[in-house]
Amino acid sequence: MIIMGIDPGLTRCGVGVIQVGQYRQLSFVHVDVLRSSPHDSQDIRLLSIWRGLNEKMDRFAPDVVSIEQVFAQHNTNTVLGTAMVAGLAMVGAADRNIPVAVHTPSQVKLAVTGNGVAGKPQVELMVAKILHLSQLPTPPDAADALAQAITHALHPNGELMGGEREQHLTPAQRQWTIQLQKVKRKASNMRGRGM
Amino acid sequence: MIIMGIDPGLTRCGVGVIQVGQYRQLSFVHVDVLRSSPHDSQDIRLLSIWRGLNEKMDRFAPDVVSIEQVFAQHNTNTVLGTAMVAGLAMVGAADRNIPVAVHTPSQVKLAVTGNGVAGKPQVELMVAKILHLSQLPTPPDAADALAQAITHALHPNGELMGGEREQHLTPAQRQWTIQLQKVKRKASNMRGRGM
Repeated sequence: MIIMGIDPGLTRCGVGVIQVGQYRQLSFVHVDVLRSSPHDSQDIRLLSIWRGLNEKMDRFAPDVVSIEQVFAQHNTNTVLGTAMVAGLAMVGAADRNIPVAVHTPSQVKLAVTGNGVAGKPQVELMVAKILHLSQLPTPPDAADALAQAITHALHPNGELMGGEREQHLTPAQRQWTIQLQKVKRKASNMRGRGM
Repeated sequence: MIIMGIDPGLTRCGVGVIQVGQYRQLSFVHVDVLRSSPHDSQDIRLLSIWRGLNEKMDRFAPDVVSIEQVFAQHNTNTVLGTAMVAGLAMVGAADRNIPVAVHTPSQVKLAVTGNGVAGKPQVELMVAKILHLSQLPTPPDAADALAQAITHALHPNGELMGGEREQHLTPAQRQWTIQLQKVKRKASNMRGRGM
């Protein structure tokens, strides 16, 4: 199973591709940062990122595209451009019938480093360790895209858009999800009994 | 010259098409509201709006696409979806080499009614008058898209994205722009001399 992680942005859009093996081992496939020039107008910049995303999706044919969640309250100067790029990634995936997932930055940091407020160097280091890279992922911005893909590999169902997408899961993923739900229900029951 | 005005939105996206005649008279061509269901996931909703926008652009082959400016400080619950749809409209246009313009809601109200804080009924009424419609534009949401197109017809150059797009102007538009700049320079000089 191929997972494409996307760290959306108008100036720099990270794209990271990983493979999940039969025994859920993760391996590195590709990483890149799509760029657009702040000297171009917004429509031309978006078109350039759009073409880049389409090219990556055609080339790597991911089974799922996982995109960093954009929040309105973040830096208002750039958030609209970031949201537009996230929207383009969603459309590119949906147009190819590829399920789309979203994970927040803190979910990603938590999944990759065990710390929801980890710094960039920690994330880069853990991405390199998890994917057995001999050096830190370059360009540095790309680490977030790989981290997004890793997060989805570790939490494959929680954040998938649209409940009906469960049919896209592999048997192993579905099994994992069922087990996860059982554990959660058990934990919830224990809390309910004051344990 | 054909102008397509777009009032972006994820639930309802207005598309209005007008024609600017040889003597700058405006006439109605088409109006519609693209919709997506809040019950679908965001990627599916965006894909549906994206396909609708592409179909409209193919059908009407506009010379320019004018899109309502999205502001980050507006209703944060919906602004990201609205920005995503605006981004899709920009990419659809840019991919066809169609110049993109943006006008703010208050520019539109001012251009169409003479009042930058006009209410929706006033805008609808003036759109109907300007385009010689025998009744108010329906569906009501569509009036904003037509108003956006009318605004661009009245102010064809001011808000075009990217200075290099001037080459897309018709000779009449270029003449209009040059005259407008002369008037502005004169006014600025007069202010400079304390007049």
